[in-house]
Amino acid sequence: MNIASIIPDRIVELGKAFRASKALFSAVELGVFTALAKGPRNLEMLRADVGIAERGARDFFDSLVALKLLERDAAGYYKNCPEAAVYLDREQPTYIGGELENFSRHGYPHWQFLTEALKTGRPQNAASAGNVFLNLYSDPSTLETFTEGMTSGARLIAPTIVAKFPWHRYRTVIDIGTSQGALPVEVARAHTHITGGGFDLPPVRPRFESYVKKQGLSQRLKFHAGDFLRDSLPSADVLILGRVLHNWNVAIKTTLLKKAREALPPGGALIVYERMIDDERRSSAPGLLASLNMLILTEGGFDYTVADLIGWMQETGFHDLHVERLTSELSMVFGSK
Amino acid sequence: MNIASIIPDRIVELGKAFRASKALFSAVELGVFTALAKGPRNLEMLRADVGIAERGARDFFDSLVALKLLERDAAGYYKNCPEAAVYLDREQPTYIGGELENFSRHGYPHWQFLTEALKTGRPQNAASAGNVFLNLYSDPSTLETFTEGMTSGARLIAPTIVAKFPWHRYRTVIDIGTSQGALPVEVARAHTHITGGGFDLPPVRPRFESYVKKQGLSQRLKFHAGDFLRDSLPSADVLILGRVLHNWNVAIKTTLLKKAREALPPGGALIVYERMIDDERRSSAPGLLASLNMLILTEGGFDYTVADLIGWMQETGFHDLHVERLTSELSMVFGSK
Repeated sequence: MNIASIIPDRIVELGKAFRASKALFSAVELGVFTALAKGPRNLEMLRADVGIAERGARDFFDSLVALKLLERDAAGYYKNCPEAAVYLDREQPTYIGGELENFSRHGYPHWQFLTEALKTGRPQNAASAGNVFLNLYSDPSTLETFTEGMTSGARLIAPTIVAKFPWHRYRTVIDIGTSQGALPVEVARAHTHITGGGFDLPPVRPRFESYVKKQGLSQRLKFHAGDFLRDSLPSADVLILGRVLHNWNVAIKTTLLKKAREALPPGGALIVYERMIDDERRSSAPGLLASLNMLILTEGGFDYTVADLIGWMQETGFHDLHVERLTSELSMVFGSK
Repeated sequence: MNIASIIPDRIVELGKAFRASKALFSAVELGVFTALAKGPRNLEMLRADVGIAERGARDFFDSLVALKLLERDAAGYYKNCPEAAVYLDREQPTYIGGELENFSRHGYPHWQFLTEALKTGRPQNAASAGNVFLNLYSDPSTLETFTEGMTSGARLIAPTIVAKFPWHRYRTVIDIGTSQGALPVEVARAHTHITGGGFDLPPVRPRFESYVKKQGLSQRLKFHAGDFLRDSLPSADVLILGRVLHNWNVAIKTTLLKKAREALPPGGALIVYERMIDDERRSSAPGLLASLNMLILTEGGFDYTVADLIGWMQETGFHDLHVERLTSELSMVFGSK
């Protein structure tokens, strides 16, 4: 092996990737993309719009250019790149900045303690004891950031779930762990015969109801309050467990699948979607790192492969299982009772 | 513009890049690559070697496979990828993990406060008042991590500085802000007529002297203690200012260039090397983010372009300026008095 031909660029790049994440988070938090949606701005205009000091402003905006989130023309005017215009402007229904703000406030600081989490096998999150979500939701600002983050996440996968599941065969849907209800909203909007709603912990109700009302769907989509660790699940033709199972250990994962099966009518369907690890556990860095996120934040959660999920669903008594890719990272598996 | 064709993958990837950085940092801190340098290990063997709990171990090691830092064979044995074997095994002279540990302990936690730094224009680093390095070096563990980080950084650029500067024309070199002296060590090793040493703050002396002694160069390379904010610089045919100027505001940058010129004999040379921003400030994300790192960590530091540096060096009276690229991120500029 010729050592001189082995260059460290990939390691160096990986080692500094956290800075790029943080520059994106700060741009979202400061509303850079929302400001630029109103029109191109030069350095001083943009700096005034987002309220930052002179010292770091030019480096910050030019970093966003180099990260290809902004463009800068010859006259020095900044504008959003196409992806930023669609996904990072707060005024767009396609906004996914909520998830990024969630990463910034919650994920990034907790990941400081990855080494400690690995050594101990224990979460490094004060909120993780008992029902982590009840703890998180006791703080209104965390409730807001977290549910908006979940909405951002749901928006990314909703188009494919809306298109690739045979909704014409069913009349009702309830999304378990629904947060603001972004997914049932998209389903109901596209499939006008569908009614139903979402199930989540009681503190989430006002967040769900105001979101669904703003979408004009309050008549068709209702909130069901409960704690799936204690209560049975509400009944509907289709139940959805999306980005839920990975939060829990294998005993709770399979209990939730059983509760879903019990709540479904004969012929009803369960959709599970998640950031899946590839079956070989060799290529899906996002899925494997999401599982380490569960190590850091929860008592027993972990992410899993499509094969793992199919195994658990078959053991629980689901059949006719289908797998569909939703994004480069997420997949859904659905099956019938 | 067809919105459906604009996918958010690049944004999502950037938003989670911090997790990949942290997985690399933990692997370095835990000695994963150093353990695997002794031979392939399966999950249980590697887990025992690096001392981590069962819960996250498999996800962690498989994340490193997905990030292409490790390889895993069909029998489940992990080994280092070629870059990791060269650059992340503590026992190799090419080890650059010191810089990554530095990022993990110092850079990553401080970057939490990027938004605040941007709003205020103020560093978010308790050590930044006065001479940030004197403050940092008052803690022995920080002194150790920081100087080892600097050694990692110097190792990456030393081969090109050793090869591309006309060392045959000069007899002595002093590296200003030398840390452990890694750069003069490489120069002296390759060019046996060269003597000199390094200049840094007094607390660095034992770190320099033990490193240089280990390399068998104590006779040719000496430590010069001082504070370049107060003192004049020691004299040598060649002075080096590497990754120094970016820590300071423009007034101190130009003062340091003047002090270097005063300390050089007629015909002497100054080498400045740094992570440079491209002159158009459009493509160098690492350089621009390094400048934001200075915003977060220092009172007035910022990174700059090759054109900026050439301007300052010409104003100070340096001529015959040459530019050489050192790595994908760093360049050197050298000129004569």
